[in-house]
Formats: sequence, structure tokens, C-alpha cells
Amino acid sequence: MKVSVIGTTGYGGVELLRILHRHPVFNIHSIHSTKEEVPIWNEYPHLYNILESQIEKINFDRISTESDVVFLATPSGVSSKLVDEFSDKDIKVIDLSGDLRLKKSGEYERWYKKEPANGQLIEEAVYGLSEWNKEQIKHSRLIANPGCYATSALLGLAPVTKARLIDTESIIIDGKSGTSGAGKSLSKGSLFAEVNENFKIYKVNEHQHTPEIEQQLLSWNESIRPITFSTHLLPMTRGIMTTIYVKLRGRYSTEQILDLYNESYLNAPFVRVRPLGSYPSVKEVAGSNYCDIGLHVDERTGRLTIVSVIDNLMKGAAGQAVQNANILFGLEETLGLEMMPLYP
Amino acid sequence: MKVSVIGTTGYGGVELLRILHRHPVFNIHSIHSTKEEVPIWNEYPHLYNILESQIEKINFDRISTESDVVFLATPSGVSSKLVDEFSDKDIKVIDLSGDLRLKKSGEYERWYKKEPANGQLIEEAVYGLSEWNKEQIKHSRLIANPGCYATSALLGLAPVTKARLIDTESIIIDGKSGTSGAGKSLSKGSLFAEVNENFKIYKVNEHQHTPEIEQQLLSWNESIRPITFSTHLLPMTRGIMTTIYVKLRGRYSTEQILDLYNESYLNAPFVRVRPLGSYPSVKEVAGSNYCDIGLHVDERTGRLTIVSVIDNLMKGAAGQAVQNANILFGLEETLGLEMMPLYP
Amino acid sequence: MKVSVIGTTGYGGVELLRILHRHPVFNIHSIHSTKEEVPIWNEYPHLYNILESQIEKINFDRISTESDVVFLATPSGVSSKLVDEFSDKDIKVIDLSGDLRLKKSGEYERWYKKEPANGQLIEEAVYGLSEWNKEQIKHSRLIANPGCYATSALLGLAPVTKARLIDTESIIIDGKSGTSGAGKSLSKGSLFAEVNENFKIYKVNEHQHTPEIEQQLLSWNESIRPITFSTHLLPMTRGIMTTIYVKLRGRYSTEQILDLYNESYLNAPFVRVRPLGSYPSVKEVAGSNYCDIGLHVDERTGRLTIVSVIDNLMKGAAGQAVQNANILFGLEETLGLEMMPLYP
Amino acid sequence: MKVSVIGTTGYGGVELLRILHRHPVFNIHSIHSTKEEVPIWNEYPHLYNILESQIEKINFDRISTESDVVFLATPSGVSSKLVDEFSDKDIKVIDLSGDLRLKKSGEYERWYKKEPANGQLIEEAVYGLSEWNKEQIKHSRLIANPGCYATSALLGLAPVTKARLIDTESIIIDGKSGTSGAGKSLSKGSLFAEVNENFKIYKVNEHQHTPEIEQQLLSWNESIRPITFSTHLLPMTRGIMTTIYVKLRGRYSTEQILDLYNESYLNAPFVRVRPLGSYPSVKEVAGSNYCDIGLHVDERTGRLTIVSVIDNLMKGAAGQAVQNANILFGLEETLGLEMMPLYP
Repeated sequence: MKVSVIGTTGYGGVELLRILHRHPVFNIHSIHSTKEEVPIWNEYPHLYNILESQIEKINFDRISTESDVVFLATPSGVSSKLVDEFSDKDIKVIDLSGDLRLKKSGEYERWYKKEPANGQLIEEAVYGLSEWNKEQIKHSRLIANPGCYATSALLGLAPVTKARLIDTESIIIDGKSGTSGAGKSLSKGSLFAEVNENFKIYKVNEHQHTPEIEQQLLSWNESIRPITFSTHLLPMTRGIMTTIYVKLRGRYSTEQILDLYNESYLNAPFVRVRPLGSYPSVKEVAGSNYCDIGLHVDERTGRLTIVSVIDNLMKGAAGQAVQNANILFGLEETLGLEMMPLYP
Repeated sequence: MKVSVIGTTGYGGVELLRILHRHPVFNIHSIHSTKEEVPIWNEYPHLYNILESQIEKINFDRISTESDVVFLATPSGVSSKLVDEFSDKDIKVIDLSGDLRLKKSGEYERWYKKEPANGQLIEEAVYGLSEWNKEQIKHSRLIANPGCYATSALLGLAPVTKARLIDTESIIIDGKSGTSGAGKSLSKGSLFAEVNENFKIYKVNEHQHTPEIEQQLLSWNESIRPITFSTHLLPMTRGIMTTIYVKLRGRYSTEQILDLYNESYLNAPFVRVRPLGSYPSVKEVAGSNYCDIGLHVDERTGRLTIVSVIDNLMKGAAGQAVQNANILFGLEETLGLEMMPLYP
Repeated sequence: MKVSVIGTTGYGGVELLRILHRHPVFNIHSIHSTKEEVPIWNEYPHLYNILESQIEKINFDRISTESDVVFLATPSGVSSKLVDEFSDKDIKVIDLSGDLRLKKSGEYERWYKKEPANGQLIEEAVYGLSEWNKEQIKHSRLIANPGCYATSALLGLAPVTKARLIDTESIIIDGKSGTSGAGKSLSKGSLFAEVNENFKIYKVNEHQHTPEIEQQLLSWNESIRPITFSTHLLPMTRGIMTTIYVKLRGRYSTEQILDLYNESYLNAPFVRVRPLGSYPSVKEVAGSNYCDIGLHVDERTGRLTIVSVIDNLMKGAAGQAVQNANILFGLEETLGLEMMPLYP
Repeated sequence: MKVSVIGTTGYGGVELLRILHRHPVFNIHSIHSTKEEVPIWNEYPHLYNILESQIEKINFDRISTESDVVFLATPSGVSSKLVDEFSDKDIKVIDLSGDLRLKKSGEYERWYKKEPANGQLIEEAVYGLSEWNKEQIKHSRLIANPGCYATSALLGLAPVTKARLIDTESIIIDGKSGTSGAGKSLSKGSLFAEVNENFKIYKVNEHQHTPEIEQQLLSWNESIRPITFSTHLLPMTRGIMTTIYVKLRGRYSTEQILDLYNESYLNAPFVRVRPLGSYPSVKEVAGSNYCDIGLHVDERTGRLTIVSVIDNLMKGAAGQAVQNANILFGLEETLGLEMMPLYP
């Protein structure tokens, strides 16, 4: 099966290449960017002698005719335009940006401060949270791949939200991310000397993943109230942890909550619910598609602490995108994604 | 004025030496440790040619006779024994451990899993949160220097807690610390390869600074309920951020809250309340005694986000200890502590 | 084919598991350590739900009977004893320690300050520098897997040394390594707070890889004189760079030297000679078995600068060990080792 | 005494402010940049409430009339123009760029690929290697502050070069620097995700500090031949180590060389020659003006290894600039520079 990737010069794009290059079914047919036409290893020397592909200009007709699926690893605001071009073509599209995620009118403009995508395409797009929206993904043509923070938070919150065990206005998500999430664009805040030996909070109460988290939570429990969601920049490259605090609506032991999660994720090969007393650290999923979850109920406060970690470039971007492509084409969900975490 | 330091081989102890060596009033008279008697630069080569002092065995009589104040930069469980030895001597004692902080019987055993210190000494000790307990510190002989996380959290929470603007059962403190807080003791979890490119949560709902935070909050507002307090390990050496979430009891703008904080800390030279829209990052206080605070009210949720950062070895340990010594002896609070943050 | 691994709790051992778990021919039959018998994920939580193996006590008879090859990922001084126990058994042994590398009597004692291994076994052992000793490896029963620094330096030096283009007393190797090379043993110097934002030289002119580099160089050119070899500790986890300086015996252009290297490594799938003007960085081989080499002749000095990078846990340890096992059993050299570098 | 600083938005400039703000004699009179006129804390929030200064447009007349000395913390190519403007004014100038360092015609163009400064000013400028050119600095009006790598290398090489103990064509300098040396300009190579967990060589045999090192070495020993000088980027913010290799012209013990260095630097308060067997690490001088030197003679090769470390922003830039200003005005050399290294 042939795939094209648009936006290969960003970190999400090059991670797609890492996965797809070794995928047993998908073959990288063409890679594209708005940059000049050079071999990909010019941009990423670690690919020297491995991937000989030339970055090509985007040709919508050729891509649609020759490839079965196209991944858009392009920034918000760019994807919307590309999706439009592919809308009348016979090709599946997996978009890694935020452009197709928000169904409710006005939300995209409010949080992204940009022009929204074509409303019909937004409506058509399926939110690709693989573990929970599998059936819709199977039959879709257009996938809005979830945000990195959103994936971590939603996988952590899903079981207690769906089971209605929590106070619906108590959700607080304290997110921490490595810098690869900010991509390769040049900004003072991404310089090594500014990030190293530093830790910052950013976009306080304004992060654009807030509405997609709320939208998905509401689909599970319509009485969920606005959440508090904070994002921080870690002095490291890969990985996200969300530490989530919710008030439980009754008295539950940690063991009971663990049972619920284990049951919920019984058939989810990439979600590992940690046993009692064990909490995941970010490095324990590095380079892999796992989402690891640890849980603890504090009897003093009646609050549940949920710790959820992912590699933001894998389960938070390229990994989940390929997982969705697998589902889309009826393949084994884990195909090409069995790589172990790289430790240490 | 002469000072002695016990526990100079730990990171808190050596930071005390950095400050005291350049302090205009205090002179380092003797340094002590349970380790062998060697020049301090054997243990810390960065002090070569700067500090010629020899580490000496602890002699309670000589220390008390010759020095005006002794700093205990010793671990919890060790300080309690040392304080006991100094209790009938004519010397001021500033203890950086947790041994004298918890007034309520049983709390120390519960959270530290160790034998508590002499009850009378605990009662006598003043909790050295410099900005808020200045009057008591002035007249005290024995100071329990606050914990690093506790300092960051309490300076962040004080104004709204005292003004009773918050829902008393809504306090959630998400703490993140550099590794120097764990000290120089050898453990697998402190190895570079385990901490680097990693981020961990630890002591989930069990951190020993929880009770001292609650004790101080209760002294400001007796209806405060148990808090949720989480601690995480950052892949960096120095610095703490606490991101604090509280529910406001009414509708307040960020500006109103900022006014309250600015007024509260008008005479606090080491607390910098950031202007509207500015949030502190950890490196912006590195190597200095500042506590920087940023504030934001989220109108969607009615919650206030408080961001508070300190250098855990300075305002979180040695810096505040010297600040307390300054207060104790009627000196200018800032003496010897005017060093700027080291940036970048 | 069945393999056993001894020493799975170190970083080299766990990297072997990462490779072998996905190897198409070798199957992990048993894992061993001197530590208690627990599931491997107790020690390495990132293996939770992936590798269910229990760490077992070492039983030489069972291992020899049931497995085809055993990897010793044990420290120097331990391997020598284990190899002895396997010496009369019918099993191939690949030792990752330095115990079997030094042929010349007295060298091991001098550089390792330990008792040497059985002399007969040392004689029998083949130095497993895969690219250059392939024929001997094929027919061997006992392989001394090269040191990490040695691998990087020797692959960098081989072509010009064999071609006798260099002044034989001019070799200077300036090595820099991430901390995973020091393993998981507890020492003050491996603490995060000591390594982070730091860079150290260590074992000045005393590093134990010196003699194995000289021994191999001498096998290529008997007039090589003692080398200068320095080792430094980088504030990072994985990777080695050796910057090598040699005086050329005549006037050669960079292009000519590049031609020689390209020819030398034509059939070496894991050695990537970079094109003119391109120099490898350490991250560009992270997590992979590649050794990347960059070259530059300085016309002002007549010196050649050779830049050679590897992942110390892969090509510098576990990766090369599996490469050697592949060769040993007549398999494709690259089997199970095709993983791309993880970037960024 | 009044000082002006031009180029305060770079890391060298802001480090000057850190020193000068607490200097007992020099007062920051005005700060300048080509950027917009904003308070300096807008650019550097760590200065909030500490330094209220406004960044001002450059006014040569006012600066010369009102200040006693001006520091140019501006990039190469910019300084040359500023120096020209100050050339007929009554003010001392200390330039931190490379624009005034190279006396020999053509060298600047060759290594910097830019237009050189006014030849007369170049001739007039004194190379401000404080420890060795003190007499000339005292009587100068224009100081070319040395490069960071050059300072580290030259302080390491001076004693054996002047004493003519070394083979004059054997000098190899392997330099490693933290990223703050690259300044705050935006480039892909300075992004956190590119530098972190990475180590790169750059400008192979082309670094622009090469000619100033050779020029100064030649002033000490006219038979010095072209040097080999390599530069690498460390995944850390502050600090430089140069590991220097030279062939000794006779048999000397490490002790003899140490004696020579101790004698050479007897009156140099900022150079610390480490005792036998002790080698400096970069963090041991962080935030301070020290240059620490370790030495070892390898009897196997007859080579001397010199390890020299500095903080590139202090002794490698702002610290040495203030040291030179102290000398220039007949003040104590150490004034305002007594800060200890920040450890850990």
C-alpha cells in the first residue's frame, strides 16, 4: 500500500518516516514539503544511506492517483487548505494538525485565532482517538488526528468520565511537555540556552487543546463542565505527562479504580495501566506508541490522581496516525508500531 | 559575627558556604560533617583556593562557645539529635531539616516514618517563613527553616488564603523540582541516565511537606481542608515551580488578585509579583533568593492559577536560612543575599 | 534459535533485550542476573506488558543445554569467571566486558587492576570488531566484544592505518561519551546534579580501552606507536564521539581520503562515511547500530581530523554483540538491527 | 565611575549587567541596543525589580560625554563600526567582538569573511588577555577582549610555550563549548531539540579563534607553527573546556610542569592550577571568573595533556572584560568579580 507524507521537515513528519520506513504494509511513495526539492537527508542527516527519497513539490493529482493515503504533518492553518484540495479526490487523509478537530462553530477561531477549515470537511472528519473511536475510524475517509496533550489527557480520563464516577466540574489537567512538541520553527523560547535548566508555564488557560479535550469528554458525559488545563515546557526533547486531578463522586479505593481501567483497556494494546503503587515516568514510553497510566485515590481529599504519559511524537502524533491508518485499512492495529521504548 | 555550619557536604550546606563566604557580617567560623576531616575543597573542588576551611568533627561545646549561630544542613532524623545537644547551650540554631516543623503530635511520625524530635524543642521552634513570620523569628532562638516546596507553595497561597477569597477545600498544588533537592545521597533514581530526558511523579499523595503546608495555611485560615499536593522530578538541577489551583469564592479579575498580592508583598524584597500576563520561569530565579509569582483567573472555571518559582537551594533552603539569620540578629533582611539570578 | 542473556539489569543488558525481543531468528530463552528473581519489568518498568520474563539465577548447565548462544553483559572481573564456567560446554559465548580482549600478558592487570581471565580462553577469543574481523568471528566460539570507545576509534582509524598513510606516532584520540557507558552502578560522579550542566575529563591517560585500541592498530600496522587517548563525560545519556587527529605522511586532499574510506566500507552496512563537508553528530545515530564518520584534511597543518560517532549501547555494546551473533551463525549481518536512529 | 553597555540583549551583554550592577566602583549609566526602547526586564524578566534601566538608542556623543568607559557586547562586524564612531571621542572602549583582535592584514577577512575594522584602530587595540598583557592594558584606550575559546587555550598553553618546552608544531586544541557562546540569534542548530542529547563538531579547521590563538602564541615563541583547533557544541548552557595536547621537547614529570604553572600564575587571582591528579570540570567554574587548569604528562608518549576550563560568559567574555576595565582604571583586578562558582 502506498503512502504520501506532506510536511516531512517537521519533527512529526520525520517520525512518520521512521515508522513507515519499516512498516510491513505501507510503503513511503512520496514525501513533500513546501521547502526546496532536496534529498531528505540534507534536512535530516540521520537518514543518510537509509532513506534516499527526494522531497517533492506538492502535486495533489499525482498524490491522489498514486497513493492510498496521505498524512498531513503540516501546521494548523496549512492543513485546512491541503485538505480542501484533497476533498474531491479518491484518497484517505490523516491530518495531524488541529484544523479538523473542533466541531462546534466558533471554537477554532476562538482558540487558534485563525480562519477555520471548510465546515463540511470538519463535519466529515473523525476524531482519531484510536482506542475509543475505532468503529468510526474504520469507516472514515478523513481523520483528525488528536493533539498530543489531548491524547494523554483523554486516555487518562476516559474510564472515570464514561463511568460517571467524577464530579463534572472538578477536572484539572496539569500538562508537561518536551520541546519537540513546539516543532522546528525558530523562536527565542525554543533556543537551547532558554529551555535548558529551565521550566516554564505557557499559554496559561489558553492552550488550543482545551476545546478538543472538552469536546471529547462531553461526548462521553454531557454534563462535563469547563476544565482547567495548564501546559508547561520541560527541559527535554520527547514526552508528555499529564497529571490529572478529579474529585470522585463517592468513596472508591485505588484498587477499584484500577479494576475499571484494566477492564476499559483490556483490548487496547498500547495502553498500559500500571499496577498498584507504580507510576509511569516519561522515559518509559520514549520512542514507543504506549500510553502508560498510573492511578491513586487520596482518602484525605477524595480526589483521584491520574498520571498519564506518552511520547508526544509517537502516540501524541505520528504513532497514533499510523495506528489510525492501520485501523482505516483493516490491518492489525499494532502493525509497524511494536518498537520498544528506548531506555535509558 | 561567627557562624558554624554542620552538614557542609550536602548541596544545601555548600550553598550556605557560597552565601556566607561573601556575607558582610557573618563569618564562617567552622564547618562540620560526620565525614572525615579533610579540606572542604576535597569534597567540592570548585572551592579550591577560595575556601581553605577544614571539615571538623562536631564539638558541641566549642561550637556553642565560639559561634553566635549554627546552621544545621543535616537530613531529617539527624537534625533532631543535634538540636537536642545544642538545647542547653547559648547559641542560636537554624535547622534546615523537617525535624522541628510539625507542631501537631503524630504528624512527624506519620509523614516522615521516623522518631520525632524532643517535643519541647518542637514547641519552641519558630517556622521560618521569613515574609510572614518575621516578628516571631526576631525573638526566637530556634528556627525550623521551611521546606523547599512548602516555601514556594505558601508564598503563592498566602494572600488569597488570608483574605479568605478561596474555597477552602479546593487547593491543589502541582509541584515540580530539580534534582538537587534530593541531595547527594546515592540512589538509582538520582543517576543521570535515569533523570535525564525523563520526568517522574514521586511520593504520590505522600510527600512529607504536605503537613507543614497545611499547618501554616490553617494558621491563616482555620477552615482550610486537606490539600492535594503532588511532586515531580524535573530533568534539571536547581529550581522549583509550584502550579497552584484554587477555586475563588466570588468573581474576581486577575487585576484584582494582582493588586492584593502586590499589596501583600510590598515590603518583601525577595517576592516579585509579576505584572499581568507575565509568568515566571524557574531559571529566572536561579542562584538567587527570589520567589517570583504569576497569577491568572480563568473566567471559564472561576479558578485562580498561581505560579510560584524559587531556587530550591536558595529561597528553598540556604538563602532563606541566611535571610532568617539576618532577621534574627536585627540585620537588613537582604544582607549577603543580593546576588542576581544567573541567566542563562 | 535460543539465546540467554546474563547481566540483564545493566544498561547494556537491557539494550540486548530491546534488540533480541524483535529479532527474527534469535529468541530470548532466559535472562539472568545475580540479583533476586523478579520479573524484569520490576527492574525496568518500560518493559511492563512487553517482556514477561523472570530474571533467573545462573545455571550453567541449563543455559548450555537449552540455548545456542549466551551474551555476557557483565562487568569486567565478573565475565572472566562466567566464561570459565562455560568453557567446557557446548555453547557460543559473546562477552561484552573487557576480560577477553587483551592478548598480551600483563596488559589486563596493568590497565584493569584486576586478575586476568584464563589465558587459554583469552587466546581463543576473537576480537569482535565486526567490520574488520568478520572471517575469524564466523568460525569462533568465543567472542570478545569490543569496548565502546575502541569501536568508535578503530572504525575511524582503520582505513588510513592499514593504508599506512599516517605518521605512526601521531595518533591522538579525544573521546567523549554519554553517561550510560558508566552503567547503573551508584557513584557520586554519576548523579544527575554532578553530570548535568557539566563536562569532565576522566582517567587521564589511563583509560582501559587504550590497550585494545593499540593492539588492534598494531595488527593492521606493526609500527604504530603508543597513542594518546582521552575520555570525557558528556551531560547526555547515549552516544560517543571520538575526534581523532593524525599526521598524514604525504599530501592528500580530503576527497582522496574520503575515496579510501568509501572503498573500505563499501560492504559495511553500518558504517556511513559522510560526504565532503558533512560531519556526524551523536544524535544522528542514537538508538541505531550505525557508526558515522566525517573526514577533513587541514592543509595548514597536514593533519587529518576524523570524526566518528556511535551509540555506545548499540554499536558500542549490544548492537555490535548481536551483529557478531548474526555473523557467527551465518545470518544476514543486519538482522534485527535495522532500526533507524531516533531523531530528535 | 560611569559605564555604558552596548549590546545588552545578547548573553554577553546581560552577563556584563549582572557583574556591573554589583560592582563597587563602576555604575551602569546607560544601556543600549539596536532593538526598540523598552525596559531591559522586558527582554530579560529575571531582571524585573532589580534593574529598572531602559534600553536606549545609541548616541555616541552622549555616551562619550557622560560615561568613562563603554563595553561593546556586539557581534563581529558591528563592533568595528561602533569603534570607529568612538575613535575621536574621549572614552575608553572595551570590545568583546573579534573585530580588533587580528593584527595581521588579511587574517580577519580570511577567517571572518567580513570587512575588517579601521586599520589604525586595530593597531592601537591591545589584546586583553588580562593575565599576560596587563602592562599594555593599563595604558590602553582600546581593548580587544579575547575570544572565549582563545582565553581558555592561551591560559592553558602560555607557560610551556613561553618556556619553550614544547615541539612547536605539535599543538592540538580540542575545544568544547556550551551553547550560550552561540548567543541568542535564531538558528536551527541552536534549538533545544537539536542540541539536547546531542554533541556536534562544527567549523572543522575553520574556527575564527584560530588566528588569534596563533598570533598570541607567536608573540611568546616566534617558531610556533600552525595549530590544529577543533570546536564542539556541548548539550549545556555555560562553560568551555579545551583539552590541549603538546609534545614535550624533553622528559619532564607532571610535577615539574605543575611547578612551572604554579610559578607562572602565582599572581593571577583567577587562574587556579589544580594539584597533581586533580582535573577541573566545567561546572566547577560556572558563574565565576576562574580559569582552572589540570596537567598530566604521559610517559608512554611524551605528550603533555592540558585541561583548561572557563565559564565562556565570564572569563570568556564579560568577566574578563570587567577584569580589563579594573586594570585599565588602576583598580584591584578582582573588584566585582569575587563571586564563587555556582555549584551544583
